[in-house]
Amino acid sequence: MSDPFVPRPEDKFSFGLWTVGNRGRDPFGEAVRDTLPPNDAVALLGEVGAWGVNLHDNDLVPIDATPSDRDRIVKEFIRACERHHIVVPMATVNLFFDPVFRDGAFTANDPRVRSYALQKTMRAMDLGAELGAKIFVLWGGREGSETDAARRPDEAVRRLRDAVNYLCEYSIDRKYGFRFALEAKPNEPRGDIYMATTGAYLGFIPTLAHPDMVGVNPEVAHEHMAGLNFLHAVAQAWEAGKLFHIDLNDQMPGRYDQDFRFGSANVKSAFWLVKFLEDVGYAGPRHFDAHAYRTEDYDGVKDFARGCMRTYLILRERGTRWNADRDIQALVAETAAERPTYSAQNRDRLLATNFDRGAIAKKGLAYERLDQLTMEVLLGVR
Amino acid sequence: MSDPFVPRPEDKFSFGLWTVGNRGRDPFGEAVRDTLPPNDAVALLGEVGAWGVNLHDNDLVPIDATPSDRDRIVKEFIRACERHHIVVPMATVNLFFDPVFRDGAFTANDPRVRSYALQKTMRAMDLGAELGAKIFVLWGGREGSETDAARRPDEAVRRLRDAVNYLCEYSIDRKYGFRFALEAKPNEPRGDIYMATTGAYLGFIPTLAHPDMVGVNPEVAHEHMAGLNFLHAVAQAWEAGKLFHIDLNDQMPGRYDQDFRFGSANVKSAFWLVKFLEDVGYAGPRHFDAHAYRTEDYDGVKDFARGCMRTYLILRERGTRWNADRDIQALVAETAAERPTYSAQNRDRLLATNFDRGAIAKKGLAYERLDQLTMEVLLGVR
Amino acid sequence: MSDPFVPRPEDKFSFGLWTVGNRGRDPFGEAVRDTLPPNDAVALLGEVGAWGVNLHDNDLVPIDATPSDRDRIVKEFIRACERHHIVVPMATVNLFFDPVFRDGAFTANDPRVRSYALQKTMRAMDLGAELGAKIFVLWGGREGSETDAARRPDEAVRRLRDAVNYLCEYSIDRKYGFRFALEAKPNEPRGDIYMATTGAYLGFIPTLAHPDMVGVNPEVAHEHMAGLNFLHAVAQAWEAGKLFHIDLNDQMPGRYDQDFRFGSANVKSAFWLVKFLEDVGYAGPRHFDAHAYRTEDYDGVKDFARGCMRTYLILRERGTRWNADRDIQALVAETAAERPTYSAQNRDRLLATNFDRGAIAKKGLAYERLDQLTMEVLLGVR
Amino acid sequence: MSDPFVPRPEDKFSFGLWTVGNRGRDPFGEAVRDTLPPNDAVALLGEVGAWGVNLHDNDLVPIDATPSDRDRIVKEFIRACERHHIVVPMATVNLFFDPVFRDGAFTANDPRVRSYALQKTMRAMDLGAELGAKIFVLWGGREGSETDAARRPDEAVRRLRDAVNYLCEYSIDRKYGFRFALEAKPNEPRGDIYMATTGAYLGFIPTLAHPDMVGVNPEVAHEHMAGLNFLHAVAQAWEAGKLFHIDLNDQMPGRYDQDFRFGSANVKSAFWLVKFLEDVGYAGPRHFDAHAYRTEDYDGVKDFARGCMRTYLILRERGTRWNADRDIQALVAETAAERPTYSAQNRDRLLATNFDRGAIAKKGLAYERLDQLTMEVLLGVR
Repeated sequence: MSDPFVPRPEDKFSFGLWTVGNRGRDPFGEAVRDTLPPNDAVALLGEVGAWGVNLHDNDLVPIDATPSDRDRIVKEFIRACERHHIVVPMATVNLFFDPVFRDGAFTANDPRVRSYALQKTMRAMDLGAELGAKIFVLWGGREGSETDAARRPDEAVRRLRDAVNYLCEYSIDRKYGFRFALEAKPNEPRGDIYMATTGAYLGFIPTLAHPDMVGVNPEVAHEHMAGLNFLHAVAQAWEAGKLFHIDLNDQMPGRYDQDFRFGSANVKSAFWLVKFLEDVGYAGPRHFDAHAYRTEDYDGVKDFARGCMRTYLILRERGTRWNADRDIQALVAETAAERPTYSAQNRDRLLATNFDRGAIAKKGLAYERLDQLTMEVLLGVR
Repeated sequence: MSDPFVPRPEDKFSFGLWTVGNRGRDPFGEAVRDTLPPNDAVALLGEVGAWGVNLHDNDLVPIDATPSDRDRIVKEFIRACERHHIVVPMATVNLFFDPVFRDGAFTANDPRVRSYALQKTMRAMDLGAELGAKIFVLWGGREGSETDAARRPDEAVRRLRDAVNYLCEYSIDRKYGFRFALEAKPNEPRGDIYMATTGAYLGFIPTLAHPDMVGVNPEVAHEHMAGLNFLHAVAQAWEAGKLFHIDLNDQMPGRYDQDFRFGSANVKSAFWLVKFLEDVGYAGPRHFDAHAYRTEDYDGVKDFARGCMRTYLILRERGTRWNADRDIQALVAETAAERPTYSAQNRDRLLATNFDRGAIAKKGLAYERLDQLTMEVLLGVR
Repeated sequence: MSDPFVPRPEDKFSFGLWTVGNRGRDPFGEAVRDTLPPNDAVALLGEVGAWGVNLHDNDLVPIDATPSDRDRIVKEFIRACERHHIVVPMATVNLFFDPVFRDGAFTANDPRVRSYALQKTMRAMDLGAELGAKIFVLWGGREGSETDAARRPDEAVRRLRDAVNYLCEYSIDRKYGFRFALEAKPNEPRGDIYMATTGAYLGFIPTLAHPDMVGVNPEVAHEHMAGLNFLHAVAQAWEAGKLFHIDLNDQMPGRYDQDFRFGSANVKSAFWLVKFLEDVGYAGPRHFDAHAYRTEDYDGVKDFARGCMRTYLILRERGTRWNADRDIQALVAETAAERPTYSAQNRDRLLATNFDRGAIAKKGLAYERLDQLTMEVLLGVR
Repeated sequence: MSDPFVPRPEDKFSFGLWTVGNRGRDPFGEAVRDTLPPNDAVALLGEVGAWGVNLHDNDLVPIDATPSDRDRIVKEFIRACERHHIVVPMATVNLFFDPVFRDGAFTANDPRVRSYALQKTMRAMDLGAELGAKIFVLWGGREGSETDAARRPDEAVRRLRDAVNYLCEYSIDRKYGFRFALEAKPNEPRGDIYMATTGAYLGFIPTLAHPDMVGVNPEVAHEHMAGLNFLHAVAQAWEAGKLFHIDLNDQMPGRYDQDFRFGSANVKSAFWLVKFLEDVGYAGPRHFDAHAYRTEDYDGVKDFARGCMRTYLILRERGTRWNADRDIQALVAETAAERPTYSAQNRDRLLATNFDRGAIAKKGLAYERLDQLTMEVLLGVR
């Protein structure tokens, strides 16, 4: 019998070039792994069984590359992707690494930086379109502040809106067909980042000129950093039709951005997430935005990448088992209930109803048992 | 010369009945103060110089009161308010204290609980309208879960939408003219609460049947619990025209709900907040949703209430000083910049522009100096 | 074949009277379960298969009981324990519920409160001794402050030391043979609690008059509240010979005190903990200081209690499997290394050694693989 | 009248070479400032009015420097210090930047790494001694793990003890007269760091061979990261005679290591800290372990450094004012109380005392007023 936890293309597992190519540099330490050229990264992803690769513009093309260098690099990259049967579902732009962005990109106080950020993003969109990507992620890693003296945060919102509107026009104009996925984060590398949560972006999108083109890209670690329940953010986005992409990794709450292997910090949260994505039929990429520990060489990077996918598949199987478990289903079965519709008659009937609070509150809801059965499914003892 | 930090009615300082009436009961300890009857609370608020009082239905009317008791209580309360020159700008409903709500109210799995929650809220709206309130706050303190096995969180979002839509109809129907202000909280008393942040509600509101009637009621402590920058949440709400009410208090990040005296945990955050509200011309109530330490008697409760207002006024004065400080203004003065407008011509001009990243990145932005000057204004040494 | 996850007396599973007897009262809600008389709690514990019961003085004897009432209650309780084959391994004292302790007990500013706290603790020691307990836990839940204006925290340390020294003398004097286990918590119900972490108590103990009599009682939730690695705290305590007792439950970081069912919030942390306790041969009680969700009736409380023990036993089995897994053991096998001993010769040899940093840093450490294998053991797929 | 907030040598303000020399590199961005040569850093410190400079070995001497290069560099550095009237009160060792330390230094699994870490530290001690330092800080930034599969944490404690014991012997042997100050941190750059809090080190020190030679170096940011009250940690260390050094900076709880300008994140906490250090007569260096925002050039770095010292001096003045404020002193005045001494007679008297809990609990403690007066002193309105 074949291993049920081996990834297949239809699982749509993707990794950023920057994830398997992460060199282990951190605020207190030097890089520990040699540079992994993009084409080698694609080969590595092919080897471990991934389906897709995503990239920031500068993951592939150096920020100062000449147009001809750029074209050559892209051509070779496309060939590498073909050779290893890897697609490029999503592209994004790096608006955080270069010192020019130290005060933000679209929200920077210097109008030249804002303009440059737009230009750089348009070019990254050109690149993404050329590689076949249909999703364009915007993570405003530097859109924030260390002191709120620097700018009024409502002005930052306005600047951000102007930028996203502009980029939507550009996509329409060029017929790129991009769907933009906005990615929130509460802090790091800035003291605070504007649009701290997926919810904040869900509130921002309806204020745009082309709200239909724009959704969100929730990331496990970014919501966990603020101690928030990731599933709840994803479910709200899904229910609003805005789950355009997702970043899978793991993270302990209240810490620096850890970007751990999926499922390795809180496997129960990961379980609910996988179960949700599968139950609702989310059809987009399962993107792992994580990286290997700094203790690893490139064999360890492969272990890391394989582990992300394998854990996802184990949890998917556990979700299927949960759905099929009779004891569990007996506990979750709910009586169908009419949804409340307002009318004078319904209003009066409702106002006249006598509820027996004591009786309703008396019955135990058996959620302890339900949760314990969940743990036992998860741990593989049922 | 008169004390500039004494509250006046035009400052619009309000307190909940439950704030000055808080008896100091907590998970590990018994109440330490005697019950403060609502009319005495109004007297206390008049004495310390507040302008308004807010209430949950059951802060005033016991959950099991007969209609005639209810009417008598309300009548006496209105008289007390008149006597002490206290208005009722906001009303809300208690959907969390009674055991019937242990699994939520509008999102509870038991349809009877959902119906009862609607009924109870309609009656609380009747009460609020009778008292003259024009803002109705909804805080879903029990709308959450300890285990996500209990319900799918997208179903919770749907149930919540149904409820808010129903209540909007009721307000329209009865011609109450309420504006609903939704109040987010990440956790406590539930393991996780749905709609964890103000941002989540800003994303929810546009999906409602009457989005114009609904805004948010951000609370300092609730965003701080998740370690989020409160000013940023408030600014996003304001910029979207959704800041219908605000709850002022204080809280250290990553802890139980502390509801401390305004400005007493992080006075710098409080400063930015007050400055923002005053600079943008927020005209709604300044509501203090906090309570006195458990070490206090009712004299201490008065100290607490006076301290909330006094600190607000000190910070308001500091904001004025900041705005008038020449060194500070020299640092924040920005060149006016055109906002980006998309056109073929603008696009081409932008794509053709050559940005000198190195030169742009070289100039220091003097935010350390700006923030230090802010601290010195705050501490009263400039 | 019998169920391997059914608790036996030799597993030493104990519960506090206050855990299964928790009525679900919280800061925003009323009690949801009827009072569970102590003797019924003992019966419940017998029914679910527990070995021991622990108690605060007032869990059993009301704070205002007469001596004769007290004696009758104790006598009946001892009989109930015998009937249900339940032992009392640990006793403690409630120095937090009564309003008299609103500013602390041993560290309160009022010397009468400090004296009363000593008196109450001595009587609780009498009670514990009478019930056969050999461990006496001290949790200073109210020893803290909302404002550091209230007292100098070094004075609080001195007062705490005086109290513990006094109580050690009392135990010696009365020949009770108690070992004291000090339990840390960072905050809640006080804004901050002195001795915030297990580490703080490990630093405090050597400054006592009878350090040998005093150790620690680490609690999962209390370290997790501060986002700390619980295993590391337990391991330090164990290595120092100070792990006198342990409180098992679960908790998401950065939140109110949740006291969830063991293993239900972060099962990986729980796994490392169980594995450590079993690997080192910890022989003390496995005490569950948790309580059932507020959605439960007493059937749910039993589910909760059974779940705590069952999860412990599943994780113990997983630990055994981890220890026996050849792939894992191949990765963790370490070359025995001499421990460094200082001498002139060793010093000179070490100073003269030439280390090839590059070569040492090149080899991957395979921790990604090791952790992934751990996850797969935990999830039951190896 | 002269500016009272200008630093003087007797204030003992010191900065690490790495603080003013921080180039603004972070996990998501490149360095933004040119390298600041050590001698220029000393000049800068002289210019802004600092008293001392501290350093890791490699802040001054490159890790691969030849002995003769090393000697030349040191000689020139000493001359620069003399020229600018800057002393070197503290030295430390960098056991975290080089890839060789990716799995820790003293606690690494590879015994060669442990040996090399000892050798490197001995040489750093030689360097520190040559520069006149009497305090040697050990921060084990890499002593931790991402997965507890990597090693048992009690083994890590043993390895750490062996290392510190060895280094104490070396200091004795060489007659360096060092006092070691151990610096805790909960996480970052490792998933978890062993010895997560100052308390953990206070518990570790008594288990050493030379406990008298070893104390702690608490850092504001490191305790705040875990949401802990820094003053409480410092006060415990002081009371135990173990406050050998201190690292001043600022940090919001539950975030990445921010190392902000002293007092800029939570000025109230900073106030209590300064007041404590001054009130108890702490005579060691006031070391600022912080760095300028990434938006700054070297003028901004000077603003940053001046701001740290200026804020300290403002808060010191506020502390003096607090101590002299009659209203405040009336609230904090306590009746002298005997400390409890155990004897048969005292025991019996105490057991026989009748405490009137209700009467004791009735009186308000006026801590709201005390804290509000504190805020007003802090904000400069009294």
